[in-house]
Amino acid sequence: MKPSTQAQHVMLLWATLISVGALAQLPTRTPTPNDTLQSPRVLTDKRVMIQIYAPKADEVTVGGDFLSGNKPLSLTKNEQGVWSVLIGPLRPDYYAYTLTVDGVRTMDPKNPIVKQGISSLENMMAVPGPETGFEDNRSVPHGEVREVWYPSNTLGMLRRMHVYTPPGYEKGTDKYPVFYLLHGGGDDDSGWNTIGRSGFILDNLIAAGKAKPMIVVMPNGSMPLPAQTGMPDAQTMNRVRDLFSAELLKEIMPTVEKNYRSLTTPQNRAIAGLSMGGFQTLDVTLTHPELFNYVGVFSSGFFGAAADEADSKYAKALNDPAFNKGKKLFWIGIGKDDFVMESNKKTLALLDKHQIKYQYKESTGGHTWINWRQYLNEYTPLLFR
Amino acid sequence: MKPSTQAQHVMLLWATLISVGALAQLPTRTPTPNDTLQSPRVLTDKRVMIQIYAPKADEVTVGGDFLSGNKPLSLTKNEQGVWSVLIGPLRPDYYAYTLTVDGVRTMDPKNPIVKQGISSLENMMAVPGPETGFEDNRSVPHGEVREVWYPSNTLGMLRRMHVYTPPGYEKGTDKYPVFYLLHGGGDDDSGWNTIGRSGFILDNLIAAGKAKPMIVVMPNGSMPLPAQTGMPDAQTMNRVRDLFSAELLKEIMPTVEKNYRSLTTPQNRAIAGLSMGGFQTLDVTLTHPELFNYVGVFSSGFFGAAADEADSKYAKALNDPAFNKGKKLFWIGIGKDDFVMESNKKTLALLDKHQIKYQYKESTGGHTWINWRQYLNEYTPLLFR
Repeated sequence: MKPSTQAQHVMLLWATLISVGALAQLPTRTPTPNDTLQSPRVLTDKRVMIQIYAPKADEVTVGGDFLSGNKPLSLTKNEQGVWSVLIGPLRPDYYAYTLTVDGVRTMDPKNPIVKQGISSLENMMAVPGPETGFEDNRSVPHGEVREVWYPSNTLGMLRRMHVYTPPGYEKGTDKYPVFYLLHGGGDDDSGWNTIGRSGFILDNLIAAGKAKPMIVVMPNGSMPLPAQTGMPDAQTMNRVRDLFSAELLKEIMPTVEKNYRSLTTPQNRAIAGLSMGGFQTLDVTLTHPELFNYVGVFSSGFFGAAADEADSKYAKALNDPAFNKGKKLFWIGIGKDDFVMESNKKTLALLDKHQIKYQYKESTGGHTWINWRQYLNEYTPLLFR
Repeated sequence: MKPSTQAQHVMLLWATLISVGALAQLPTRTPTPNDTLQSPRVLTDKRVMIQIYAPKADEVTVGGDFLSGNKPLSLTKNEQGVWSVLIGPLRPDYYAYTLTVDGVRTMDPKNPIVKQGISSLENMMAVPGPETGFEDNRSVPHGEVREVWYPSNTLGMLRRMHVYTPPGYEKGTDKYPVFYLLHGGGDDDSGWNTIGRSGFILDNLIAAGKAKPMIVVMPNGSMPLPAQTGMPDAQTMNRVRDLFSAELLKEIMPTVEKNYRSLTTPQNRAIAGLSMGGFQTLDVTLTHPELFNYVGVFSSGFFGAAADEADSKYAKALNDPAFNKGKKLFWIGIGKDDFVMESNKKTLALLDKHQIKYQYKESTGGHTWINWRQYLNEYTPLLFR
């Protein structure tokens, strides 16, 4: 069975029919190179051609998580007005990219597959190969990913979360352990399900017998505070941290445990988060060490002022000789080139100082979904054992 | 409770934190008007300001379903490079729009809310007001919308559908009637859930006691045939029609009826579709009149060659004196300005000729989601009575 996640063989016929109807009311136009352009195109040698038709533009660049560092690549224009860049060869994986045309952030007009954030979009593309087997949409039993709205008294608004239920949940009667999986800054509860490919990663792990069937709850960790420009002050960061903690404990967990067939002991609860979500995970774990026996921190740590105050703020948990006993797993992963490495190191030093045991993975790469999908794939098999 | 579907008060703080980290590796840059730009902005008089920072561009236009006709509107540039257009006042509703910058289709960089199609994206925006009550995310019990992957032997691939289960489904034991809701050309199974707002429309109808609790199945109606340019020939159109019919009958309905607590008699099955989905609905209804007692056709009809052959192809059903008895509802709706009005009229004439009874609604407007959400809101309360 071929997966149908890519829009490569899509049925444009009806779109064409509609266009023909619409165009009937417009003057006839000359065909352009844009009509037959495909972007992105993955070549057999794993290089990727990204193209955009922009005959009037002076400069087109592309940024993406396949680049080491932040410097975007320039595209070059041919005489027909088509800009091109050949990237790679890339290791087979899923990648995010964004075009910039004369300074305007532009979604690739030929690629409708995007990842939505709270304030911006990115295009997604797949470079197929055996390396992506763990995250591909494969011919295995699939769980369901549900969009769930619930009223939050804590935030005074309706909030959404994504909930993965494993294959067999719908027809069965079993209860399942629950894994709370948190996204990073700028994202919402859809991120792990789109570019994070969490549903497919779980499906594949469960099908291979590598992970226990479980419910995965992906809440919205972005708090509804007024938008700020510049670096947030320590007070605002604390407010965000405390708001999320309250939301998780008073709203999300009770909603999940009431509505889904879930096991509710600490032995059957796991949490993990990336970047901002890793900080939220650390905070909840050290404020309420009794809740989760499995803890994962991806590409994160105590940032800025939070690092300085962590020793005193979390003194009770850090100095509790029983803390380690309550954790079957405390897993920390980060890429060597991650720009939050310093925060990560400070956090490790704090844990070391208090003889908190953890499992540490330093991978290649930076602060990217490339790493976070790998970490999810490594962390999840260790849960509920 | 305030709904949180709009990204207006989003928490940019952590995104900022990430950016600060990233920017630390880049040269300092001068602030631009883009930094504080908001788009779209809905003014108190229901006009909408759409803006984009594109200082080098020579021409910027916006198209959208708020325009009657297909002519896009021009934006005008100020001395700082910000292009603006003031639209409306618009009737409160949800709208789709797309910017074009020097000929390049461009998603509004300040608006991350998009509707995904099989080959392109559109931005979405909300103009709030009492008129949108039926489609708003309100403080009522919410059902769940599930992304469901299933293996299709008919198409030889994994396929996705969206399934709405009503409030109470997860905790209950009741069986529910099932409504199959089909999208139009160029869309996939996510369309009714994003710009179609089907989940919220169902939630509100059920909460008000106007619709029966039901399962709503939103399959992917776009068939995986090679992309074509130009008008599809009759043979290809027939292939699309027959493939979808097989997919629905052999794959989608059995999967749903096996996996969900569904009532499976014709009295408990409804179908409706818009545009291409309306044509698919007509085809399934006249090929298998025994399956669905409730049928809805939105902005559609037999198109092109299909109209000429319908009388003979569907002769058995059309000439069956028991056909009307098997239909508790045959609902047809279209906008006065719809470009498929001719196909619609031909179809009505065919039904009239054979004394097939139907309920007909001619609304204002054209071939737009503005109408399709209204039709869903009118059609759904009539089901399973």
